[in-house]
Amino acid sequence: MLAPDRLRSNETGVSPVERLHALVADDMRATDALIHERLGSAVNLIPDLARHLIDSGGKRLRPLLTLAAARMGGYAGDGHVKLAAAVEFIHTATLLHDDVVDESALRRGKVSANIVWGNKPSVLVGDFMFSRAFQLMVESGDPAVLAILADASAVIAEGEVMQLKSANNLATDEAHYLCVIRAKTAALFAAAAEAGAVLARGAGDYACAMRTYGENLGIAFQLVDDALDYSGRQALMGKSVGDDFREGKVTLPVILAYARAEGEAQKFWQRAIESGQQSERDLDLAITQVEETGAITETMTRARAYADLACAALDAVEPCETHEVLAAVADFCVERAY
Amino acid sequence: MLAPDRLRSNETGVSPVERLHALVADDMRATDALIHERLGSAVNLIPDLARHLIDSGGKRLRPLLTLAAARMGGYAGDGHVKLAAAVEFIHTATLLHDDVVDESALRRGKVSANIVWGNKPSVLVGDFMFSRAFQLMVESGDPAVLAILADASAVIAEGEVMQLKSANNLATDEAHYLCVIRAKTAALFAAAAEAGAVLARGAGDYACAMRTYGENLGIAFQLVDDALDYSGRQALMGKSVGDDFREGKVTLPVILAYARAEGEAQKFWQRAIESGQQSERDLDLAITQVEETGAITETMTRARAYADLACAALDAVEPCETHEVLAAVADFCVERAY
Repeated sequence: MLAPDRLRSNETGVSPVERLHALVADDMRATDALIHERLGSAVNLIPDLARHLIDSGGKRLRPLLTLAAARMGGYAGDGHVKLAAAVEFIHTATLLHDDVVDESALRRGKVSANIVWGNKPSVLVGDFMFSRAFQLMVESGDPAVLAILADASAVIAEGEVMQLKSANNLATDEAHYLCVIRAKTAALFAAAAEAGAVLARGAGDYACAMRTYGENLGIAFQLVDDALDYSGRQALMGKSVGDDFREGKVTLPVILAYARAEGEAQKFWQRAIESGQQSERDLDLAITQVEETGAITETMTRARAYADLACAALDAVEPCETHEVLAAVADFCVERAY
Repeated sequence: MLAPDRLRSNETGVSPVERLHALVADDMRATDALIHERLGSAVNLIPDLARHLIDSGGKRLRPLLTLAAARMGGYAGDGHVKLAAAVEFIHTATLLHDDVVDESALRRGKVSANIVWGNKPSVLVGDFMFSRAFQLMVESGDPAVLAILADASAVIAEGEVMQLKSANNLATDEAHYLCVIRAKTAALFAAAAEAGAVLARGAGDYACAMRTYGENLGIAFQLVDDALDYSGRQALMGKSVGDDFREGKVTLPVILAYARAEGEAQKFWQRAIESGQQSERDLDLAITQVEETGAITETMTRARAYADLACAALDAVEPCETHEVLAAVADFCVERAY
């Protein structure tokens, strides 16, 4: 399954994401400095609320892809730092709006901004961060890159609306679910990697390879996230479990478990997801169902396949340390669930 | 006060905004077609919700400014149509988010989108429209123009947050109120006019004149809007009255009336605005207060002064029919209140 060299980083206790950070450490420091500079506003509530989320220990995976793709492509300017900051701003804006839409109470183990400050400032500060993202993109000055990120933003919003419409609907099938996660999650991973590549080498094979890598990594990432939402391991990591279940989101674990359910189990999903009638112990029941039907195992098998596609896309890129670490990141994104 | 030629259009029963429409009729038709094309999405809820607002009889004042500024500047391409559509998309996105934030039930005399579809789709479709705006801006291809509209978007969000913070706060003074409306309203008027001008003639005197025109028109427009919210005339126009009062917004009529209030009247404003305790007949009391203290008259005097500044900015532009109609639009924006 996994080549031995892909696992090495795990064995040394340094995660591949940390190795990627180390490879672009100077660029990432510049990106973080720029992010904090551009959060600034004379309206104090804006940086206060934005910092709450920006400084909450996100892995900066998306801007890392931009920086790595630019670096591996031989880019020598500083536009990639602006793009990486823009990518993180787009991501942060969508998180702020997601938490309002999902009525979430926790984000990265912290009380979410919508709970601390309310929905209204969260919506407006999200808009501010979208605008800051576009300002940074414009400053970076490459029209091709602008189009990539503007397109991704529109696709993300479409994905979020699709997800909203499929909530509580057990008729949602795997194909539709894939459309949703491709749009709401993978589009930004793809655009982040492609933008760095295009900045370095323009449109072409390299940009295409990095886009494919990013997209498949994004799909794998979301599949694992959706599996972890029904996992006891998630609780150990300080993250809440069962958010998707409580919100009636029809993710792949639910789609697969429901397809295999009969009798009482079928009625259980209809009551809990479609009618939204849930009692205290229903999450435990749901976890048992997704595990016993093999829905979690199969979701992880799918994630593994997308991570492999991400690695395969890198075959078109000349070997180097960044290349190796990006492949390890894709593996790690799946391995983190075990 | 008003030169006779400025009033002429009113006497003929054709409003200056209609005259402006007629001057750029072909461009406006192309803009409307583009707007409807770009509302499109395979996710039906998006065009359904967006059309509800886009087709609700807005005057398209902001895109008209872009088209008129480009035309008057001698622009011969078709990028101004994309910019005008982008400007209307930004405006529509802010309206969708405003209505969520303000918990509004009516918009342009129709039930608002947040009531028909709920807050969640309104937030997400607003994000979609912001993204569509940036896609259109990128297609128009002028980096200087991109920066103008990206900057305006960030300023608008800042203005909305400022407004949120000053709600229910009678310590808000006129200077702060002006900061708020300059950001939340005038920034887009200014950017819309400047963007068309820069597309036509680049940065320089013409762009500066059009920006100044737009900004002062925007301030006048918002002052009149805030006065009309306490006006019986507004009710005759099919618009709701008292929205700002019910939301505890501290607009100029309230700031001026409160500054002149004593005894019971002072306590009335404190209860109704600061504590938010309002009964059925409080709006009538508020209307009486803003009228009797002269707060409405003075708000309109300020609006008149900003409309005059808008007209004065046009003095730097060579005389032509568009020039004359833009001046009439500024006058009309104030006159509509009488």
